[in-house]
Amino acid sequence: MGRPWILDYDTDNCTIGAAVAIIGEKWTFLVLRELFNGVRRFGDMQRRTQAPRQVLSDRLSRLVTQGLLRKVPYRESGQRSRHEYRLTGKGLDLYPILVALMRWGDCYSAGPDGPQALLTHRGCGEPVGLQLSCGAGHVLASAREVTPLPGPGARRLAGAGR
Amino acid sequence: MGRPWILDYDTDNCTIGAAVAIIGEKWTFLVLRELFNGVRRFGDMQRRTQAPRQVLSDRLSRLVTQGLLRKVPYRESGQRSRHEYRLTGKGLDLYPILVALMRWGDCYSAGPDGPQALLTHRGCGEPVGLQLSCGAGHVLASAREVTPLPGPGARRLAGAGR
Repeated sequence: MGRPWILDYDTDNCTIGAAVAIIGEKWTFLVLRELFNGVRRFGDMQRRTQAPRQVLSDRLSRLVTQGLLRKVPYRESGQRSRHEYRLTGKGLDLYPILVALMRWGDCYSAGPDGPQALLTHRGCGEPVGLQLSCGAGHVLASAREVTPLPGPGARRLAGAGR
Repeated sequence: MGRPWILDYDTDNCTIGAAVAIIGEKWTFLVLRELFNGVRRFGDMQRRTQAPRQVLSDRLSRLVTQGLLRKVPYRESGQRSRHEYRLTGKGLDLYPILVALMRWGDCYSAGPDGPQALLTHRGCGEPVGLQLSCGAGHVLASAREVTPLPGPGARRLAGAGR
């Protein structure tokens, strides 16, 4: 393999970097896991993630500020009004990231009993998976079948070699 | 929506948690991005990620220990022997996570010029994407079409409600 073309380009507008700046942190992923499992309340999230209260509060606020969650008020009888958290459209679009993490974990970190959770298609009950495929409909088996190329937003570094 | 069943189950053997414990951190994602772009040398990674030297060294060691990378020696003429980093099979299998992060970032964080990089199928040149689909071949449009169910490794909490 030769020198990768990407070395001649700027990293400033990399969208993996942008995504990771918002969600690339352990507690944030665990909070998102809870939300995709339908867990919406602070106390439940705290118990399940074991996140320190202040950390959890901080991560939730950040996700609200970034437009991934919204706060919805609720009141149980005899208690003061509280709020729960729900995923917005922008938040729901994170789902493939969580599924990809889960698949990898299922493959390399599940215990002898197998995975803790299964994803099934609401419509037909069949198991759900992620597939890497191309515009011509080919299913790709691995990263080795992918060629990354400079996109329209790529910025060459001043003084780049080639 | 009723009370999620997951509240009655233990989180200890969650495979999202296990995956995130290994890679759920900003610098680790940026290192993996570099590796999938073919960047294998410490100096190149340091320049492109802007990670502090010690942080980068720590993250790379951790990925080697976890079996995601291997070190391969090389020597350029007149210089001392060094090593570069290559993804193992376990590391290459992280690719869908990176693609999912990139897709989400392309959608919500790309600048006006568009994304910095494009993924194309080596075989035919068509753009590569990720699809959520089920065992019966249905393509799923969103998380709303997925029902999570307890898997074989699910452990009910002592004293769970239902």
